[in-house]
Parts: sequence; structure tokens; C-alpha cells
Amino acid sequence: MHDTPAGSVALQRHFASDNYAGVHPEILEAIAAANSGHVPGYGDDPITAAAEDAFRRLIGDDARVFFAFNGTGANVVALAAALRPYQAVICPQTAHLNNDECGAFERFAGGKLIAVPTRDGKLTPADVRRNVRELGNVHHVQLGAISISQSTEVGTVYSVEELTALGAVAREYDLLFHLDGARLANAAVALDVDLHALLVETGVDVCTFGGTKNGLLFGEAIVFPKPHPAIEALPFTRKQGMQLASKMRFVAAQFEALLRDDLWRRSARHANAMARRLADRLRSVDGVRIAYAVEANGVFAAIDPKLVAPLQNERRFYVWDEDASIVRWMAAFDTSEADVDAFAAAVARIASSSAASSAAQNGARTEPR
Amino acid sequence: MHDTPAGSVALQRHFASDNYAGVHPEILEAIAAANSGHVPGYGDDPITAAAEDAFRRLIGDDARVFFAFNGTGANVVALAAALRPYQAVICPQTAHLNNDECGAFERFAGGKLIAVPTRDGKLTPADVRRNVRELGNVHHVQLGAISISQSTEVGTVYSVEELTALGAVAREYDLLFHLDGARLANAAVALDVDLHALLVETGVDVCTFGGTKNGLLFGEAIVFPKPHPAIEALPFTRKQGMQLASKMRFVAAQFEALLRDDLWRRSARHANAMARRLADRLRSVDGVRIAYAVEANGVFAAIDPKLVAPLQNERRFYVWDEDASIVRWMAAFDTSEADVDAFAAAVARIASSSAASSAAQNGARTEPR
Amino acid sequence: MHDTPAGSVALQRHFASDNYAGVHPEILEAIAAANSGHVPGYGDDPITAAAEDAFRRLIGDDARVFFAFNGTGANVVALAAALRPYQAVICPQTAHLNNDECGAFERFAGGKLIAVPTRDGKLTPADVRRNVRELGNVHHVQLGAISISQSTEVGTVYSVEELTALGAVAREYDLLFHLDGARLANAAVALDVDLHALLVETGVDVCTFGGTKNGLLFGEAIVFPKPHPAIEALPFTRKQGMQLASKMRFVAAQFEALLRDDLWRRSARHANAMARRLADRLRSVDGVRIAYAVEANGVFAAIDPKLVAPLQNERRFYVWDEDASIVRWMAAFDTSEADVDAFAAAVARIASSSAASSAAQNGARTEPR
Amino acid sequence: MHDTPAGSVALQRHFASDNYAGVHPEILEAIAAANSGHVPGYGDDPITAAAEDAFRRLIGDDARVFFAFNGTGANVVALAAALRPYQAVICPQTAHLNNDECGAFERFAGGKLIAVPTRDGKLTPADVRRNVRELGNVHHVQLGAISISQSTEVGTVYSVEELTALGAVAREYDLLFHLDGARLANAAVALDVDLHALLVETGVDVCTFGGTKNGLLFGEAIVFPKPHPAIEALPFTRKQGMQLASKMRFVAAQFEALLRDDLWRRSARHANAMARRLADRLRSVDGVRIAYAVEANGVFAAIDPKLVAPLQNERRFYVWDEDASIVRWMAAFDTSEADVDAFAAAVARIASSSAASSAAQNGARTEPR
Repeated sequence: MHDTPAGSVALQRHFASDNYAGVHPEILEAIAAANSGHVPGYGDDPITAAAEDAFRRLIGDDARVFFAFNGTGANVVALAAALRPYQAVICPQTAHLNNDECGAFERFAGGKLIAVPTRDGKLTPADVRRNVRELGNVHHVQLGAISISQSTEVGTVYSVEELTALGAVAREYDLLFHLDGARLANAAVALDVDLHALLVETGVDVCTFGGTKNGLLFGEAIVFPKPHPAIEALPFTRKQGMQLASKMRFVAAQFEALLRDDLWRRSARHANAMARRLADRLRSVDGVRIAYAVEANGVFAAIDPKLVAPLQNERRFYVWDEDASIVRWMAAFDTSEADVDAFAAAVARIASSSAASSAAQNGARTEPR
Repeated sequence: MHDTPAGSVALQRHFASDNYAGVHPEILEAIAAANSGHVPGYGDDPITAAAEDAFRRLIGDDARVFFAFNGTGANVVALAAALRPYQAVICPQTAHLNNDECGAFERFAGGKLIAVPTRDGKLTPADVRRNVRELGNVHHVQLGAISISQSTEVGTVYSVEELTALGAVAREYDLLFHLDGARLANAAVALDVDLHALLVETGVDVCTFGGTKNGLLFGEAIVFPKPHPAIEALPFTRKQGMQLASKMRFVAAQFEALLRDDLWRRSARHANAMARRLADRLRSVDGVRIAYAVEANGVFAAIDPKLVAPLQNERRFYVWDEDASIVRWMAAFDTSEADVDAFAAAVARIASSSAASSAAQNGARTEPR
Repeated sequence: MHDTPAGSVALQRHFASDNYAGVHPEILEAIAAANSGHVPGYGDDPITAAAEDAFRRLIGDDARVFFAFNGTGANVVALAAALRPYQAVICPQTAHLNNDECGAFERFAGGKLIAVPTRDGKLTPADVRRNVRELGNVHHVQLGAISISQSTEVGTVYSVEELTALGAVAREYDLLFHLDGARLANAAVALDVDLHALLVETGVDVCTFGGTKNGLLFGEAIVFPKPHPAIEALPFTRKQGMQLASKMRFVAAQFEALLRDDLWRRSARHANAMARRLADRLRSVDGVRIAYAVEANGVFAAIDPKLVAPLQNERRFYVWDEDASIVRWMAAFDTSEADVDAFAAAVARIASSSAASSAAQNGARTEPR
Repeated sequence: MHDTPAGSVALQRHFASDNYAGVHPEILEAIAAANSGHVPGYGDDPITAAAEDAFRRLIGDDARVFFAFNGTGANVVALAAALRPYQAVICPQTAHLNNDECGAFERFAGGKLIAVPTRDGKLTPADVRRNVRELGNVHHVQLGAISISQSTEVGTVYSVEELTALGAVAREYDLLFHLDGARLANAAVALDVDLHALLVETGVDVCTFGGTKNGLLFGEAIVFPKPHPAIEALPFTRKQGMQLASKMRFVAAQFEALLRDDLWRRSARHANAMARRLADRLRSVDGVRIAYAVEANGVFAAIDPKLVAPLQNERRFYVWDEDASIVRWMAAFDTSEADVDAFAAAVARIASSSAASSAAQNGARTEPR
């Protein structure tokens, strides 16, 4: 149907984003299996109950789960349910919440983001402490939450100790500890810990548990690992936030399949391995410098700007930081070893080629991811 | 997995809502067919382009289409893109926008809804004229849009003449003419007109073209039938409104399949026919009075309150108006003649049964639809 | 400076609004007296403390007071501090909050107003009970507050019993009981009760205590008669709501003077008496029918539409209800008996004059009040 | 009335903020002069017309003026009238809009502030250019305005050339050029230019013309120096933004008096001179380093942290930057030479005193200004 020339593009796998990938076959089967007869809408159905139970088995009996359409919605709804509009959220300057959600938080929650520069995409307790001075000052927004991405937007992973330290400072100042886990699975397998250790023991109050970037058709989960006052507001905030799916069973069925038989870990482990493989293949390539530790499913590399255009002709990817000429290569659940090896070879070839040195640069892409 | 007792429920078909139904098999096939390789996210892919083209073939070359997750999102994003926060929207008191979206419009767009009572779910030009007096009065919200549901929330359908009259008053006062078409297909087949006649010739500025209630897994389309200044703001408003799907191809593939081979009309025609069949079967039943003209896929009937509970034990449905004891029975694309006949028989049996007269009423459901 | 022709207008007193009046001389003196040296801004000054104390002496030791610029600000900030955006406020359709604040509540608080028609400007417990059905229904805004105007927008006054009954239903459903007291003083003298009886014993949670319409240059007070959880959020909400005055001492000094020596009651008593005098003078005039009980400082009269224009040439006033041809005549602290008698005579003369019957109607004003 | 101990404080003049000062006597006289008879509310009165004319005589015939209550309100209303919620405003990190308005912009306008660090409180064209890259990227807020403070929050003043350069980059990218002129008068006298040169020739689209910090009781003016599309939305946005005064004549009368006989320049010139005098007196004091050029009415000085507490016992002031131990000393229209000399002497005395070196530091104040 969509055969030329778009079709040819569709048959390739790129390194642009884990959301360029399609749906994992086990997920698609789960959708088909859920498609029988009528069930109540909006989550009052047995499939949704089963998916929530599946989360509780991994996190703890007190966990509460609310499904949402997308990551922006899940992040913003969770924060808006917990905060008053005069409260602010501290996050890394690189945060998806800050850079890639077109001001959804500001508009829907009414609050301010305090976006701080980081060395490696990670917020520190010291960053938080520098921003609590104005607590009580009526002229200034009141810090109300910490929001971090795990894994981070630059492919690094907070250690359990780092998370625990942030959880402690959150408790100290009565801040919500929010975790954007669009790629939480990649972090969990990188750290080789279970969700109880990752979320409950570290003091996370609420997280987005990503589905779309780990093989779902669509769908994210807002997860409260333990009881929290914001849970009462969440259902209304989700509905008012336009994130309540009517045919909820199909979101739930996907998550139930994702958690069943460890699919979420299998897919993430594979994607991480493919990123590591790519990084390994490239370490010896002249003119390519890995910019951040490759701990999840992304490789960030500083390359000669002249290499960008010819490389983008091979496989699609984005320039992450135009000034520093850092590019981003993401692996997905379906990235194959052959994909990696072919691309790594292309990088090596183009980097060494004299052709590369004269290639016209056709402008970096700065789209979101 | 979901076998008892939920499973048994899942095998039945109810009359509660067209969103209790699952996914039409042709739609599921289209999703599977779209699931190959990597494509750019957020709509920059050939499948999305094809689906937009399919809309243009039905409406006109100038039509612009933006996909969204759900009906609440599609309604609110379209209105918010077109209006300033000090502007108001006039709509029927029964409007989904007013009753079933938990204040999403007020929160996201910042404006006010002027919800007026109607006789049959339909707004009239006179309703609009009564609310233009304060134009220019700085103390009062400024009427900026007309929003109607087609088909209406009570199963009636605006005629082309009624739409045209509303379109004319909208132009007269420079108001946006918005149409919530969650069940637009049902109206189109009821009127036996094409989309150009229904949307372009009547003067509609923007509409929600419903997918979810007509057999999609999820997905609605925001459609501008002709050029409009709000189109420029729409992409940003959609993203900020948390309604931009990353794996857009799967929304688009569903719509492409819905429009292909007239599936949208086939499904709607069937649902309408099932509603009409149900109404026909019930007209002679004592104690059941059809409350609104059955023009689309819903039957609204005033029944003895004592009948509600025993009937809800047969098949699920909602009480629409508790005071008037009006219930709502919706047909979906998959409602069978046998479903209708069995339910009609149950109504007749229970209405005539003396058991019914003593049945304890266990409280009407007033959930959304 | 402003001598012709505006100057001549400025020397007259009208019946358009109590905010057409200027500043009471005692208030102006208090402003001048406060104008010495430097004091901290934003309320951290001894004059503000003294004014707050003055309120506490009248209401009770637990009362908390926050000054704001205007009535719209005071109403919206109080409600926004207490409510979540998915909550709704029930109020009379005539409410200033609903009609005269250009959607400030919807935009700033993000919530919905449920505006119900009333017979005499007064909300009843039955109105409230009809709107609690959807509590818990996630698709519907959640009723969170009752807001009434005391005295009402049509010059009537809730009795203490009526207030107490509303307070009881508020407590029953855990609703905030908000009172827009732009003309609270007029109600207090009409009922001949003190503020403790009017606010504490009736169960009011928060009220706007009006200053501007009772002789202040500007300034309203948000008053919590007793402890309430929203008090914690109020200071931040006021600042974020752009209602925190830097030179707060001058707002406070006005209120301190208003409460001192019962000026607030003296002014309100006078205005009420002038309204009553006007109504008394007009009861026997053919073609004038008093539309609502004259209990505060406003007279609402149904008159022949042809009388409006010639009467507006005498003194300014507004048409309240164009369809019913009801006009509004407001008395202020400075309305004199001579003003009333001259205007009443003009009404009688014009009503009886044949000239009136042929006067061209030059269009009613529908500005706010 | 407010005699001890607060009274003693009230008789002193501090260096904390120009809003610690009271009302200029000529302003108070103008208020009293405006206080006769009834005039229409909300600005439809001859005094408001006269004040608007006064602005036009200084700026140009095309200027449009809208009065507001306070600086936060004036800034936010102007920006909200011009921008869509998905647009962002670039401003210095030090901006009042960013630091001292408790997120009013984010909540009311729904947009994002992009707050950039500066060397001397001044935004540069290069700062703007670094933030236009994402124009057209739907995932990112769209830069829509430049907002600067003139004079700046650190007492410096943009030259006409610097303003013109910002105006040019604003036009290049179709950005609104907004100027927070809470202290515009101080800048105008520092530059010795008229308002036409300062606002029209530089390309400013809209500014806040400050009154409160220059001797008004309250009141700011939103000024559009030349025609702009946002003017149409301004009146509604101001009302919805809770910034429309009912007794507008008293705001207008103050501004008319401020502009009459150059009071605005006289007061600003005096305050600037007092700041310069203070700086001059302190340049030779050991342990005091002037941190920013003293171009308007503020002196920012880096001092030994141990000096803060004893100095605050002399006269009140705020610590501006705790980390760098920079304090802020502001002069007002009523600051006398004796005030300056006495305070300068105290600084010298305390700085040299050995007592100072052992004084316990009792915590810096970080309140707004």
C-alpha cells in the first residue's frame, strides 16, 4: 500500500529514536486477544484490573497505576495532580519535560520549571539544595517537586545510591520525587535491579513507566509505588488532562503483555546491548568521541560536523547538541546486530573517507526524541 | 487469562456505549500491516500522509487533518487553537464538551462554556443570537465559538439546513463553528450526504471526526474542511495539549482503513440500523416511551424506574436522565440483530412481569459515555 | 483641569453604580495619615497589622485577612486557593463571578462555574443538592464550592437562616462556602447583625469583604472567619494572582478607617436608606414596578422601555435585564436625599409625560456594575 | 495610632526598596482633586482620557495606554495579550517577571520563560539568537517575545543603541519586544532622552510604565508606543487578569499628575542622584565594592557578610545575592542627602569597626523588591 518511495524507508531500521520502531509482536498479539465482546470503558474492566495487578506484583501491594496515552501526558498529569500552580519543579535542563513537551506543564499545571544545567544529564542533591532558599518567600515560586529522567536523556543511568540521595533530599524539604521513566526499563536492566528496589527503596513518589519506547503501540503508566496524597486527585486530573482512554482495555492489555514473561526487561536488555555494541564498534574510529557513558540504549557521540549529513543518508538520527556537534544514536527493541554492524561500518568508512571531509552539511535536525 | 467472571462479561455485547465495543477486524489488520520497520515519529511518515490524503478525497483539497488520541483532546485542542482565553463557546447543556470532559476546556483553554438547555439536543441560531449581546463588553466573556455535536448526545441529527443556518449565524458574528463529530459517521449515513456537503457547504470551521466510537482502537481526527487561521496554531496546541502521538503511523493507519472501502459508513449504517430496530421492537411495549427521535445509533427511552435494575442485569446501559427516568441504549458496529432482539424481548418481558414491579432499584449509573 | 464638559458630569451623582462614587473623606484622611516615612512593602508593616486586628475584633480571634486590589481578584484568589482545577463552583446565574469577571475564574483557577437560575438572586440548598450527583464521577467536574453574593446582585439579602442552611449543606458535602461580599456591609445593616453572626455562625468559609463599593479608593479584603486549610495557599495564590499590593499600608489604612467608628455600617446604612427612599417614592408611579425586594442599596424596577433613554439623560444608570426591561438604580454612601427626590420626581414626570411615550430609545447599556 | 514601636520605624527612610516609600505629595493632591461627584467606572471618565492624552503628548499620537494595579499585573497582562500559550519569553535570569512574580506569567499566560544568565542584568541580541533555533519545532515552546527591564534589576541602564539592537532582532524574528519599565523613569533621566526616543525609535512594542516605585500610591501603565495587534485583546485580558480598577479615575489622576510638570523625571532624577551620592561616598570604604555600574537608583555592593546584620540594624535593605554577598541599596523619590550621608557614614563606621568583624550574622533576607 505504502510501497514507494516511503515503503523503502519503512523497511529500514534507523537510530533516530526508539519511537521510530513499531510494535513488538507479543504486544500486538495481546491487543488482538483483548478484542472480544464488549467491556466497560475507561478502565472499569477485568483486563485493566489484571494489568494493575501485574504492576503490583513487581513493585508492591501498595502500588497504584493509572494508564495514560503518552509520555508528555503521563508526566504532566502526575505532576499536576500533586502540585499547586504556585509550585515549581526542578529538573535537568535536558529534561523531556523541559525541552520536548512544548510547555505542556506550564500551561496545564500552571507552574514553573527550574531547569538546571548538568554534567551528565543527572540532577544532584546539591542542585536541589541551591533552590530551596526561597521556600516561604511569597514572591517566588515554591519548589514542590524534583523531576528526573531514568535513564537520562543522554543515555546515562542514576545509580540506586544517587536515587536514594535524591529521595532523601526530597523528603527533607517535602518535595515530590518524580521520575520520568520513558526508558525506565533500560535503567532497570542496566542496574540489574527490580522495580521495588528502583522505586520503593529509593523513595520515588510517582513515576512514568514508559511503554511506547519499549515496544508498545501507545501507552504509558503513571505509577505511585506507595500511598501518596496525590492519588486522590489523579483520576480527575487525568480526565481533565485529556489522558483517559475510553477503550482502556487495549492499553492495559499491552502493559499486561509487557510485564508478562519479562518482555519489558528482554526488550530493554536487547536495546541496551545494541547501544553498547555500537559504542564498542566506534571507540577506535578516529573523529568519533563517545560523549556520555553508554549505560542505557543511547549512544551520544561528538563527531566532525561534516560527517553528519553523509551519515544521515545511511540511517536517520538526530543531532543532539549543535554547538558541540554531538549526535544521538538510539537503539530499539528491534535493532539487530546487523543493523549496528552495518551502521558502525558506515561511520568508520565515512569518517575515514576523504569524501566526508568535503561533504556539504545539510543542516542538523533538532527534532524531539 | 480473563476467564471468570469477567470473561463471560467480555463475550457479551451491551447497550451501554459504542466505546464498550472493541476494534473492527479491518482496523486491526491495518495496524498489523503498518507494523514493519522504522518510520519517523509524530506524523512525519508516509502512512500519515496517506490518511490525510484519504480525508482530502472525501472533503476537499483544502482540508487539513490532525490526529489526536481521544475525543476530549480533539475537541479541546481544536477550540483552544482557535480561541483566546477570554472567549466563550456556546453549546447545548447536554454537550460532551460540557458534561463529560471534567472541565478540560476550562482548564486548558481558559475560557467559559455557555451551556444552554435544548429541546432535542440541538442548538439553534436563536440560542446563539441571545448570547451575542455582550460582544464588546469588557466585563463579560466574548462569545467566540459555536460547538455542537453531530449526531447529538441524544441520538438526533441536525439536518443540512439546520447546520447551514448555524453556519450562517457563526459567520455573521465571526464565531468559530465547531462540530463534535464523535458520531459524525452516524449522522452522515442518517442524512445520506457526503462529507463535503456535511462540512464544507454548511460552513463548519473545524470538527472532530470520531474514530473510537466507530470501531477504532483509539484515535480521533481534528478536521478543518477549509483554510482557517487556527490551523497555524493547531500543531503547537496539539503538542502542548498532550495529544500528539509519537507512533502516529498507527493512528493514521486506522483512519486510512476506516475511510477505505467506506468502512466508516458501513459501520455507522449498521449501528444506526440496530438502534432503529431496537426502537421499532419497543414502540409497542407498555411502559417504554421513546424520548427522542431515533436518527443515529442511540435509543433514548423513558421507562419506569423500577425496570432499570432488572434490565441492567440483562445488558449494561446507563441512565441518561435520572429525574425523567430516561435511559440510553447505544448500538455499536458489532451489535447484532440477535443482540437487539434478545434485549428487546427482555425489555418486553420485564416490563410486563409483575416481578419487575417489585424489583429493588439499585441505583442508576450516571457515568459518561 | 477637567472642567468642560466632563467636569459638569463629575459634579453630579448618578444611580449607575456604587463605584461611580468617589472616596469617603474619612478614608482619604486615613491615606494621608499613613503617608509618612518608609515602611516595608507587601503587608509586613504595622498599619496592615492594625487593620487585620480591626477585622479580628469584629469577627473573632481566629479570623485571617488578606487584602486584594479588586473584587474580581478577591473572589478568584479565594476560590483558587481553596479548589483544585477539576472542581466546580455553584453560583447564581446572576453572580458577579459568572457575569462580570470576563472568565477570570475559569482562566486563573481552571475550573467550571455551574451557574443556576434563581428567582431572587439567591441560591438555595436544593440548588446545591441537585448538583452533587456527579461527585465521584471522573468524567464530570467535581462540585467543590458554593459561591453566593451577599447582598445579592439584585439587591436582596439572604437571611441568617438562609445562610445557615447553605452553610449546612456545604458542610454536608465538604464544599467551600464562599461569599462575595462586595456589598456585605449593606447586608449586615439590613439584617442588623454583627460580622460574627453573619460569617462565623452561618458557616461561611471565606468571603470577600468589599471596600471599593463602600467608599474606599480601592481595596477588598479576603476574610477567612475561622481556620481553613486554604489559608496556607492564600498568600502564594494572591501573589501569583497579581493581587498583592506593594504599598500595602495604603490598602490597610483604608480598611482600618472603614472599620473604625463603624464607618462601614454608617455608609452602608445610608446607602440602603437612600435606595429604600427611592423605592418608596416610586411605588405609586404608574409604569414603574419594583422587581425585587429592596433590602440593600439597589432598586430594580421594571419600566416601560421607552422611559429608559429620557431617564438616562437625567442620571446615569444601567439596564439590568433587557428582555424584561428591568433597570438598576444603585445608591452610594454619598447619594443625598435631594439626589433621590430629584430623580424620583424625574421618573414620575417622564413616566407621565406624553413626551416619554415618543422618545426614541437609544439602546440600553449593558455594562457591568 | 501606629506610634510604638512601629511608628518609629515609619518615620525613618530605608534603602530596602523604592516601594518602601510613600506617596509623593503632588500625587496625593491629585487624588484629592479627583474626588468629586460621580464618574463612570472602569476608565470611561474624563480623568482617564486626560491621563491617556498626557502619555500621548510624551510618546506620540499613536500610543495606547491601559492602567493596571501593579507591576506583576501590568507585565503579565501585556505579555498574555500578545502571546499564545505555546509561546515563550526570553528574559534575563534576574528579571522581576522570572523571580518576583511567583509564576504569575506561567499560570495566567500558560507559557514558558526562558531565563538566561547575564553579566550586568542586560539581555543581548546574541542571547536571543541562541534561542530561535527551535522556531517551527512543534515539540518545543516557540519563542514569541523578548522581555527586558529598563532600568535593569541590578541598577544598570540599556543604552539607546542596545535597545535598538534588541528591537531589530525582535523584528527579525517577529518577536514582541516587551520592556518592564517599573523604573523606566530612572532610565530615561539616566540616558537623558525623551519617551519617544526611548520607546518608539528603539522598536519597543509594549512596556510597563512604572508608577508605584516613582511615588504613586499604586498604579502602573501598560503602554503601546505604536499600533500593535495585541491592543485589541488587551482590554479583555486586563479584565480577565483581574487588573481593571473600577474607580479608574484615581489611577489616572495619579498618572496625570506624574506626567504633569515633569514630576516623573524630577522624582527619578533625585532618586538616581541619591544612589550616585551613596556610591560615591562608599567607593573609598574598605570592604565595600560596587558590583554593578550605578546608572539608576540602586547601588549593588559586594560587602563582607559580617557587615550585613549590623548595617541592617541601621537601615533596612536586602541581600541581593547571598553567594556573592552582594547587597542592594535603593534610593527613592524621598531619600534625602542626609539619609544618604548618615547611612554612608554608618557603612564606613561599621566596616572599619572591629565590632563588625565579630558580629553574628543573623541571616540574610531574600525577600523581593
